[in-house]
This record gives sequence, C-alpha cells and structure tokens, in this order.
Amino acid sequence: MANKDYNDPPPAPAPFIDSREFSKWSFYRACIAEFIATLLFLYITVATVIGVSEAKTCSGVGLLGIAWAFGGMIFVLVYCTAGISGGHINPAVTFGFFLARKISLPKAFFYMVAQCLGAICGVSLVKAFQKTYYVQSGGGANVVQLGYSNGTGLAAEIIGTFVLVYTVFSTDDAKHNARASHVPGLDALLVGFAVFMVHLATIPITGTGINPARSFGAAVIYGHKKSWDDHWIFWVGPFIGAALAAGYHQYILRAGAFRSQGSLSK
Amino acid sequence: MANKDYNDPPPAPAPFIDSREFSKWSFYRACIAEFIATLLFLYITVATVIGVSEAKTCSGVGLLGIAWAFGGMIFVLVYCTAGISGGHINPAVTFGFFLARKISLPKAFFYMVAQCLGAICGVSLVKAFQKTYYVQSGGGANVVQLGYSNGTGLAAEIIGTFVLVYTVFSTDDAKHNARASHVPGLDALLVGFAVFMVHLATIPITGTGINPARSFGAAVIYGHKKSWDDHWIFWVGPFIGAALAAGYHQYILRAGAFRSQGSLSK
Amino acid sequence: MANKDYNDPPPAPAPFIDSREFSKWSFYRACIAEFIATLLFLYITVATVIGVSEAKTCSGVGLLGIAWAFGGMIFVLVYCTAGISGGHINPAVTFGFFLARKISLPKAFFYMVAQCLGAICGVSLVKAFQKTYYVQSGGGANVVQLGYSNGTGLAAEIIGTFVLVYTVFSTDDAKHNARASHVPGLDALLVGFAVFMVHLATIPITGTGINPARSFGAAVIYGHKKSWDDHWIFWVGPFIGAALAAGYHQYILRAGAFRSQGSLSK
Amino acid sequence: MANKDYNDPPPAPAPFIDSREFSKWSFYRACIAEFIATLLFLYITVATVIGVSEAKTCSGVGLLGIAWAFGGMIFVLVYCTAGISGGHINPAVTFGFFLARKISLPKAFFYMVAQCLGAICGVSLVKAFQKTYYVQSGGGANVVQLGYSNGTGLAAEIIGTFVLVYTVFSTDDAKHNARASHVPGLDALLVGFAVFMVHLATIPITGTGINPARSFGAAVIYGHKKSWDDHWIFWVGPFIGAALAAGYHQYILRAGAFRSQGSLSK
Repeated sequence: MANKDYNDPPPAPAPFIDSREFSKWSFYRACIAEFIATLLFLYITVATVIGVSEAKTCSGVGLLGIAWAFGGMIFVLVYCTAGISGGHINPAVTFGFFLARKISLPKAFFYMVAQCLGAICGVSLVKAFQKTYYVQSGGGANVVQLGYSNGTGLAAEIIGTFVLVYTVFSTDDAKHNARASHVPGLDALLVGFAVFMVHLATIPITGTGINPARSFGAAVIYGHKKSWDDHWIFWVGPFIGAALAAGYHQYILRAGAFRSQGSLSK
Repeated sequence: MANKDYNDPPPAPAPFIDSREFSKWSFYRACIAEFIATLLFLYITVATVIGVSEAKTCSGVGLLGIAWAFGGMIFVLVYCTAGISGGHINPAVTFGFFLARKISLPKAFFYMVAQCLGAICGVSLVKAFQKTYYVQSGGGANVVQLGYSNGTGLAAEIIGTFVLVYTVFSTDDAKHNARASHVPGLDALLVGFAVFMVHLATIPITGTGINPARSFGAAVIYGHKKSWDDHWIFWVGPFIGAALAAGYHQYILRAGAFRSQGSLSK
Repeated sequence: MANKDYNDPPPAPAPFIDSREFSKWSFYRACIAEFIATLLFLYITVATVIGVSEAKTCSGVGLLGIAWAFGGMIFVLVYCTAGISGGHINPAVTFGFFLARKISLPKAFFYMVAQCLGAICGVSLVKAFQKTYYVQSGGGANVVQLGYSNGTGLAAEIIGTFVLVYTVFSTDDAKHNARASHVPGLDALLVGFAVFMVHLATIPITGTGINPARSFGAAVIYGHKKSWDDHWIFWVGPFIGAALAAGYHQYILRAGAFRSQGSLSK
Repeated sequence: MANKDYNDPPPAPAPFIDSREFSKWSFYRACIAEFIATLLFLYITVATVIGVSEAKTCSGVGLLGIAWAFGGMIFVLVYCTAGISGGHINPAVTFGFFLARKISLPKAFFYMVAQCLGAICGVSLVKAFQKTYYVQSGGGANVVQLGYSNGTGLAAEIIGTFVLVYTVFSTDDAKHNARASHVPGLDALLVGFAVFMVHLATIPITGTGINPARSFGAAVIYGHKKSWDDHWIFWVGPFIGAALAAGYHQYILRAGAFRSQGSLSK
C-alpha cells in the first residue's frame, strides 16, 4: 500500500546533499504536490483580491475576506499536502526547514522551483479569467504601499515571516513530542491562522508577502515596474524572518547553545 | 446497538453494482440523511443570500457571510452525516467517490436523486418564507455573471470543484492511515473551509456552484431562462473537476500508474 | 479528587424522576454552571447587538459579528460546561435531551429555570451598561420582523432549532461511539458553528431565537408589547424543532422503530 | 533531548517561593518566550487597529477584523508557547494561576515583567512603522469611551476577564482529566475564541483590555493623558475578574469548600 510514502524528516540532521532522493518517485511526487498546491493557493487568493476590487464598495468580501482567503487556503493545503511533501507551499518555510537541516539542499531548491512555477500558473489563470479587473487592481502584486518606506516594508516582511515560521516550527516540535493527543490537522489550522493574522496586520503596508513564491508569481504575470523595483524586499524579508525564527527556535526554545555549554542545568 | 451502522467503504474497490445493498435499512437511511442534509444546506445558504440582498448596503452579513454560510454548513453537515451516509451532500463528491470505486453505481445514483430532491425542498422553503426578496435577488441561482464568458464560468467551476474533491480525497486518505491522532471532525472542518475558500474566490464569476444539487435546486425553484441556459455548466464543470481530482489523487498522489510500471522505486 | 464529577448520562434511558439527584452537590453545581453560562452568553451577545446599533453604519462588527458572537459563545460555553452540566445553555436543548430520556424531568425543569434566570441577569447587565443604545436598538429582543408573517417566524424557529438540536444529537452519538479519535472540544465547535449558521440565515426574519432562555431574558428586560406578543413563537418554535430533531434522530438515524419491527436487516 | 522541558504544574499547590527555579534555564526561557509572544501579540493587533483607522470606511478589515486579530493571535501564541511557558501572554492569566497556586510568586512577577516589556516593544514597532496613523487613531490605547462611566468600564473589564480566565481554567481542568481524547491545541483555539468574543462585545465600551500588559504597552508608547487617567481600570478590572474566575472555579466548579464540609455527598 502506498498510503504513507512520505517519511517525516528524522530528528537527526538531514544530509546536506542526498543523491539517492532523485531515484525515488516520492521525491517527484512531493514536487508535483508543491506545484499544484501553490497553483491553487495563488488562484484562489488572487481571484479573491480581484473580486474585491471588482465589487462596488462594501459589496465584496472585503479585506477581511482577502485575509481569510490567504489563511484559509494555507490551512486547507497544508492539511492536504502534509503527508506528501511536508506541506511547505512557501519558499520561506522551505528555507527555514533547510536551515534547521530538516531537508537537503537539492530538495529545498526543487521545492522552491515548483512553488514559483505553481504560483505563476495560478496567477495566469486569474488573469485569463478576469483580465480587466486584474489590471485595474494591480494584479494582486506585492508593493510597498504609498506612505511607507522600503525599510518599513522590509521590516514588516521580516516580522510577518517570523510569526509564520515560528508557528511552523512550534507545530513541528509538537509532532515530535507527539502523544496520542497530537492532531496534525490542528497544526494546519494553526499555520493557517498565523497567515490570516499577518494579513490582517500588514496588508496596508506591503499587501503582505511572507511568501516569495506568491510575490514572484504575481510580479511575473503583472509585470509592472513598481512590483519589480520592490521585489527584492519580498525575498530578502521572508528569508531573514525565516532565519530569525529558525535561530530563535534552535538557540532559545530548543536551547541547543546553552545546553552544550552546560552552564545551566535544565 | 445501532451506534455504528455505517460501514466505511473497504480499501478494495466497491462492486460496480451490489444488489444486496437494497435489502439493508442502512441504505435507505443514508439516502434520507443525504436528503435532509441537502435540504438544510440549501435552506440556510439561500436564506442567507436572500437576507443579504434584502438588507441595505453594509447592514447585512455581506458576501463574506454568504461564503461562511456555504462553508460552515458543509462543516456542520459533513460532521453530522459522516457516520450515516459518508457525508457527501453534493453529486460531484458522490461522482468522485464513484470514480474511485468507493461506492456502487446504484448507490451513487440514489444519493444524487436524494441530494437534488433535498435541494429543491430547501429552496422551496426559502421561497415560501421570503417571496419578494427571493425573486428580486435572483433566487440564489447560479449563472455566469455579466462580463464573464461561459468558458470562464466552466473553468472556474472545474477548478473550484477540483479544490473541494481533492480536499475530500485527502481527508479520506488520512482516515485510512488513521492512527489515534486522526480526528474525523477536523476533516469536516477542512472540507467546510475548502468550500468557504472557493466561494470567496468565485462568487463574482458564477455565484459558485461546485455542487450540482445546489445549482439544480435553485434553478428549479427560481426557473428563469438565464439560470437554465447556463445550467449545464454547473453539472459539467463540477463533474470534470471531480474527475480530475480523482485522477490526480489516484495517479499522482497514490501513484498507482507509476508503481505498476515499476520504473521508480518508492 | 473532584476532577470528573459529572457523569455522562447512561445509554439506557434516564429515570423519569430520580429523587436521589437532589441530595448531590453535582446537581446544584450543574444548575449554577447553567446559570452562569447563560448569563455570560446573553451578556456578550446582547452587548454585541447593542454595540452594532450604536456604531455608525459600517464601522461596527456588523451582522456578521453578531452571528459570530452567538455561535462563538456557544462554542466557548459548551466546551467549558460540558463536563459540569452537559453544556445545554438552552431550554430547547434541555427539552430535546429530556425527550430522548437522557435527563430526568426535575433536572430538565431546574436547568430551564437556571437558564432563564441567567439570561435575565445577563441582559440586565447590558442594559445597566448601555442604557441609551439598549432602548434604541430594541434591547436585542426577538420579534418577527416587518414583512414576515407569524407563521413564517414560527417555521424559521422550528427549522433553525432542528439544525441545532440535530447537531447536538449527532455529537452525542459520536461521544458514545467514542474511540481515541473522538474529541469533545470539536463537538463544542460544531455546535457553535450550527448556531452561527442559523443566525446568518434567520436574523432578518426573527432576529433568531432558537433558544427560549435567550428570547425570554431579552423580553423580560426590554419589556415592550411587540416582544411579548410574539413571545410564544420563541418557545413553541424551538420546542417543536427540538422534538422533530429528537424524533429524526431516534426513529430514522438510530432506526429504533424499524429495527424493532425487524422488517429490514441492518 | 530537550523536546519537553516544560513541566506542567503539579496538581498539588506550587510552593509560594521556589528558589531553585532561578537556577534552571527553563525558567529564563519561559520568560523570554512570554516576552516574544507578547511582543508579537501587540505588534499584530495594534498594527491591525492602525490599519483600520488608516483605511477609508468599508475598505479595511473593520472592527470584526480587529476582534479576530486579538482572538486569533491568542490562539496562535498560546498554542506555540503552551509547552514552553504555559502560554499566559497576559498578567491577568498569570495572576489567576498564581491565586490557584499553580505558579510561584517570583515566577508570576517575572512573567508579568516580561509581558509588559514585550508589549512596550511590540507597540514601539507599530509606532515606528505607521507614525502618522498611529497618532491619529489613538495608538490602540484602552480608554473608557465617551458616553460610558468609569464604573461601567471597570465592570466590563471585570466580566470580560472573568470570561477569559474561566475559559483558561476550564481547559486546565480538561488537561488534568486528560484521556487520549484531550487535544491541547483545541484548548488554545478555545481561549482565542473567548478573547475574540469579549472584543466583539466590549470594543465600543473600553476598546477591550482584559490584558493589563496590552493596555500598559499601548499607554506607555502613546502616552496621552486620557489613557493614563483611565489606566488603573485596566489593571484593577482584569485582576478582579481573574480572582472571581479563580474563586468560581475553586469553590463552585471544583467544589473544594463544600466537599471539605462534607455536608453533601458528591
């Protein structure tokens, strides 16, 4: 039976490069699952964004609906792909897992490629369906909003991604400490809520990226100058945020550094 | 004790036709449960739609409330009927399970009939309660909205149903891989969220069908030309979407095709 | 240890009258818990209603926020009181459990008294805090809205309460079939969602009662003629709805009648 | 392995002062976790508040979005810190646990200091990012709103905190009664919903404090006279509410007093 092909990464560090991965169908399947999930994520979320700008004032689902779309889709897709690919759907999450030595470098690379391609395809569908409103509403692309500096945008992306990746690592701990009472589906709900929360707070600042594939897909298909000028913010910010979250988790919460010095009893 | 009459479909394919089913009370009970659940689903959701169009701008629950009504009722009803009928409440889901050989052909047929009858009764109640607003607001019927082509409407229905049925199959996998940590109720929440998400994205395009019984019940009771002209879209789209999701699940995620070729180790 | 004083009702029918109940502290404690829970329920929900009418258009939490307040508080309070009193917080639910012979007659009576007193106290607090807006906004009382007949209001209350009590019975089944995977807290979430859903649909018709204590408490403190004239609807409707749900559950889903006739194999 | 450093407080009362705590890394780690969590809590929630006041009417996430931000962040952060610090993120919750003798006095003190410092840092970030709108919108500070007396504000804070701390104690009971079916993550969702509910009801009255660290951080950074004049309400109210909830839980629900008198059988 192929019911449980995905193997949770071992607590021990993953090898930096593991050439045997490429000979396994589960590797390719995981990349396909990341591709499809990111495609569906961008399709639903950008269509929601366009739908709101198409609606007359107050008659669409509003910014709250947009925030729900981003958070809710992450809940749904993490739940559905957790057993296939680990449920990343976001290069920043993949980067955090790579830093924590939970996936190998080539796997991280191919995941990111699959996510970016999926995002491009997802936004393409929305543009094909809703062309007029797509252009009017800025194509769902992430830009630093008027009245905010690039530094503020970068900081907002760093902290937002910190919240997300800190949450992901917390659920990962819970999984490894699992007793009967650990429920993977609830982890997916939590990660979805973290995304929902960050969107509530930072849509007015950057439109909220915290997912480089989402920003990249929207920028490629929309393709205006402003969205490319700011684009570095939506890779650098999330990657710094993910690195900080990985460090906070590793050196404070898991206390690796302190324990090895033996300066304090546990 | 009659506590657990419903038997989960076996992992092995269900027989194409199983005449013994008709002699079991659990078969009829499952059809009644599908009928009642679809009735309540349409009653609550269409009443919400009518209530929004009745309200002055900003003083109703809005499009976000409508999306919650569709998603939330699916959560509630899938939870309540999962142990009785498997919790379909949607011919596209039934079709997907039939393609995956999880239910027999006659059972699929009678489920669909029960769902369509339930939908008709549910919408009838709303029309009886709120006649004036019912007509003004288009009776909650699915049509391709102004500014969108039939092709776009069809594509939106296909992808939306893909999201739903892909989610349903993912929860079904989780059930069969069940360890102590699998929680059926959380599956229902997930499926409800998938429906909520699709509504956020595609209400501006087609009103969101992704459930032929829902579209059929609304069309029968509203009965205007436009909703009948477009009606094929809300059967063909969901059925194609369900078939694609069943195929994606079977041939990619469960990897049946590749494994049988033996070209890749697992 | 007093950790688990509440005993789930046995699968066998509860005695019609059980005089020994009155000598147990757990009986009085359950009544107090129902009183406090209903007090908090009415306080939060009616304060939310008043807050919305106090706000300028579009700047309050809106009807959607009101629907969340009713549903969310039921989630919270059912979770908190499930282990103490069974988590009714609603005379219609108590009536349904009485019909299903899960609680005795005196216990049902004292629960209802505690719920009604709690509701009165909860609404009193809101009136004391927000007097001006309280009166302007109709005091959160349930009335049949303009443009709807009493018959429609009654029918809406019947179906709405059917949805709620059907959901409660479904979670109750799940509890008795419990394996490791049954999660009581998720049941509370489900019941909360059922209440949320009914409010989305029927606030425009009756303001949504489906809980006679809620309607009674609001009517007592608001005390205008219209809310008393319609008041019978908010007892008769919920009690009929609860009886129908109990019957549907007992004679169709649990199939008691058919099985005893032996006319069909299970 | 450092996977499970946090030890749940024993059912027996914690010592009033436990000097050995200070020699453990887990003590400092818990304080850091409370600091970071309260920082993220204030950052996300106050940024949401500012974003709403920045938006034109109807185009922000609205009051409903603000209520979700407070409730949703509590869900996320309680889930993430439950295994590290017990997941307080609120001096009123810490005070309640201290009264119930679940944490020692010095630990309670250092938790509160960490929470207040975290709150100050979180609000500072928002002010640094969104200065203009920050000042215009009152800095997210809690004040008794126009038209309400201080007494009403105090009472609203007392009852709101009672709802929160009563919920926290209920989940704590569930944990100690744990069987396989207890799911800690669902407790976090419940506590988040309690916070969401109280915000729906009392934002129009006091802006909703029920968390002295949240009120203190906002007052320090905003620093206007009105927010300092009312500030005592947002410490006294929550502490009284927490004490009442602890008493209700201890003397009614856990029935310590009555059982020791032996006047009633259990």
